[in-house]
Amino acid sequence: MAGGVTAPQGFKASGISAGIKANGNPDLALIVSDNAAAAAAVFTVNRAQAAPVTVSRQHLQHSGGMVRAIVVNSGCANACTGEDGIRVAVGMAGEAARLVGCPVEQVLVASTGVIGVALPLEKVRQALPRALASLTTDGGPAAARAIMTTDPFPKEAAARVNVGGADVVIGGIAKGSGMIEPMMATMLGFVTTDAIVPGAVLARALREAVDESFNAITVDGECSTNDCVMLLANGASGVAIDEASYSAFVIALTGVCRELALGIVRGGEGATKLVTVNVTGAASAAEARRCAKAIANSPLVKTAIHGGDPNWGRLIAVAGRAGVAFELDRAAVTIGSIALFSDGKPHDELAPAAAEYLTGKELTVGVHLGVGTAASTVWTCDLSAEYVRINADYRT
Amino acid sequence: MAGGVTAPQGFKASGISAGIKANGNPDLALIVSDNAAAAAAVFTVNRAQAAPVTVSRQHLQHSGGMVRAIVVNSGCANACTGEDGIRVAVGMAGEAARLVGCPVEQVLVASTGVIGVALPLEKVRQALPRALASLTTDGGPAAARAIMTTDPFPKEAAARVNVGGADVVIGGIAKGSGMIEPMMATMLGFVTTDAIVPGAVLARALREAVDESFNAITVDGECSTNDCVMLLANGASGVAIDEASYSAFVIALTGVCRELALGIVRGGEGATKLVTVNVTGAASAAEARRCAKAIANSPLVKTAIHGGDPNWGRLIAVAGRAGVAFELDRAAVTIGSIALFSDGKPHDELAPAAAEYLTGKELTVGVHLGVGTAASTVWTCDLSAEYVRINADYRT
Repeated sequence: MAGGVTAPQGFKASGISAGIKANGNPDLALIVSDNAAAAAAVFTVNRAQAAPVTVSRQHLQHSGGMVRAIVVNSGCANACTGEDGIRVAVGMAGEAARLVGCPVEQVLVASTGVIGVALPLEKVRQALPRALASLTTDGGPAAARAIMTTDPFPKEAAARVNVGGADVVIGGIAKGSGMIEPMMATMLGFVTTDAIVPGAVLARALREAVDESFNAITVDGECSTNDCVMLLANGASGVAIDEASYSAFVIALTGVCRELALGIVRGGEGATKLVTVNVTGAASAAEARRCAKAIANSPLVKTAIHGGDPNWGRLIAVAGRAGVAFELDRAAVTIGSIALFSDGKPHDELAPAAAEYLTGKELTVGVHLGVGTAASTVWTCDLSAEYVRINADYRT
Repeated sequence: MAGGVTAPQGFKASGISAGIKANGNPDLALIVSDNAAAAAAVFTVNRAQAAPVTVSRQHLQHSGGMVRAIVVNSGCANACTGEDGIRVAVGMAGEAARLVGCPVEQVLVASTGVIGVALPLEKVRQALPRALASLTTDGGPAAARAIMTTDPFPKEAAARVNVGGADVVIGGIAKGSGMIEPMMATMLGFVTTDAIVPGAVLARALREAVDESFNAITVDGECSTNDCVMLLANGASGVAIDEASYSAFVIALTGVCRELALGIVRGGEGATKLVTVNVTGAASAAEARRCAKAIANSPLVKTAIHGGDPNWGRLIAVAGRAGVAFELDRAAVTIGSIALFSDGKPHDELAPAAAEYLTGKELTVGVHLGVGTAASTVWTCDLSAEYVRINADYRT
């Protein structure tokens, strides 16, 4: 379904130009819940955390997990900006709080763009009244556009889920790792729902959904200073999530997050193919994930896929070095449904069929580790010369 | 000094064509010590170990660490080849042992080339008498050429070290990660010395030297199925390494290994620049190394360096995600001797000078983590579109 963050009841959003981006494209998004919503968030594990990450983390704590609004700017990451950066992030939240009419702690902030450049607070302050005036119940798409940096397309998703006979809606927007302008390295996601969800349950649901979506994708293995996913539940549907409906809610939430996450991979820098990496036969889920991530980040695997080369030896070599239990004699490699290596033996006569399969745009590769029964799936894109060109261009 | 593995006394080597490579280039190297030499080796940690790795490991054990000869072929890795591959590796060693006149356990074997293809034992058997007949005391360069796959140039090094008034010589050859033909992913190193060194001391010296040379380089973060470094000490100089001379010996050994290792980086796929990554101010040496490796493998850092972009934010972002203790407010980033970020503040006015520095071919970048006093150095190359072109080409 359409609508992104405004698909659920009781949410408004807008996206306008505040003049942060030199080209005048939209660069300021505002998402407001009609009432204080239960909120949960996951933030980057990067120790060089951007000012908005620090401030949003504090606000979530101080507000007891209740949030009215999220302000997001693109075009400047407000990262590695020291105490000035904190002052600017707090200032953004403060001005939005004044306009919305809530305590400053009930406003979360996020920024994406160039690292190490000061964010012009005055431009944000001057633009926020316009952002407030532009808020509408179908403003999700405008907000999705305003958080883009060099993403090739906006990412939106929404889903309706039936919970004990009544419907709740979950919607979200995201911006991805389109690092076409160097020093852009940010993934942001904003998800809303009109379900009634207690804070602790919301946090758990978000963690589960993110593990199988945003945390299961990789473009180039880089983790930014600004990454965050925020989830607001304002209860406007009047439908509460309880123990019986929790799993249905998490499945729908995971679906929305996954659609956004796969959009990020499809829009990855220089990407021409979406690749699903399945690791099976692992000793544990953690080892399966670790191996799948190693494969998804391997430059040799990603270049082989880019070139349409069914080079199973590279997949075996990565599995062998991934630091997980692995038995070569019981291992297998599949390209699509074609097993090119199994039980310690190559089946190179199948290589032409696998090469034909690899001409597709949405591909699956599988590695069976031959040890246990645990599995994991990770999504990635191919590595093209375009990625290098994009990231080697001098900034100035 | 010249000579590679035949620079020390009492070693002969040869390199000939056995017809394993379709283009007729040299592909079989033989290194023989006049007497059984004390031997030490380090092997790949990849769990998909190639047959020659398995066999050499066993031979080293069964021979009590005494080795007469090393047989190396290029053009075929004899990896993921099952029991047949083991039979072939043992057969190579057996034929060399018969010709040299020693127990089969005193012969080590190594292979480099395509994964998953059977190595034609008969070709090796037929060529080995010629390799034996070609052995000379200046055959090191020929052996260095015969172990190349798609390396742009052979790698040799040798050093003379004065030990208690007498000289010993250390020499070595290596082949690198020139993976121009897909599925080549192998680094091999062979080092000889005429010093008298007990096996346990030799193993410790090799481990120390490798840690600061071969284990401190990266081209693309891939670890192959065949990597190994072998060191033979035949005592032909009559000079013994004791406690007093150990450190001088290790320093010289490290120097030889490092020269070979840097040759591998310079010859890395698509490489145009040799980059020294210094991490300082770390909580421990292990964390310093971990962070340096993360920087050296970061596609965003490597593409920025390729493009001559003094993009310090990318270095900070990698340090922050490397899983090591890191204090942003006390951290610093240097490009050459230019500090672009320090004490939590950018110095972007220095960016043009840093960009000018980055036009060079041998570069140093530094990150200070602001936590402790430990440091580590790692060497890498830039990431170019040529790397992608090389590795995306379809094998057939």
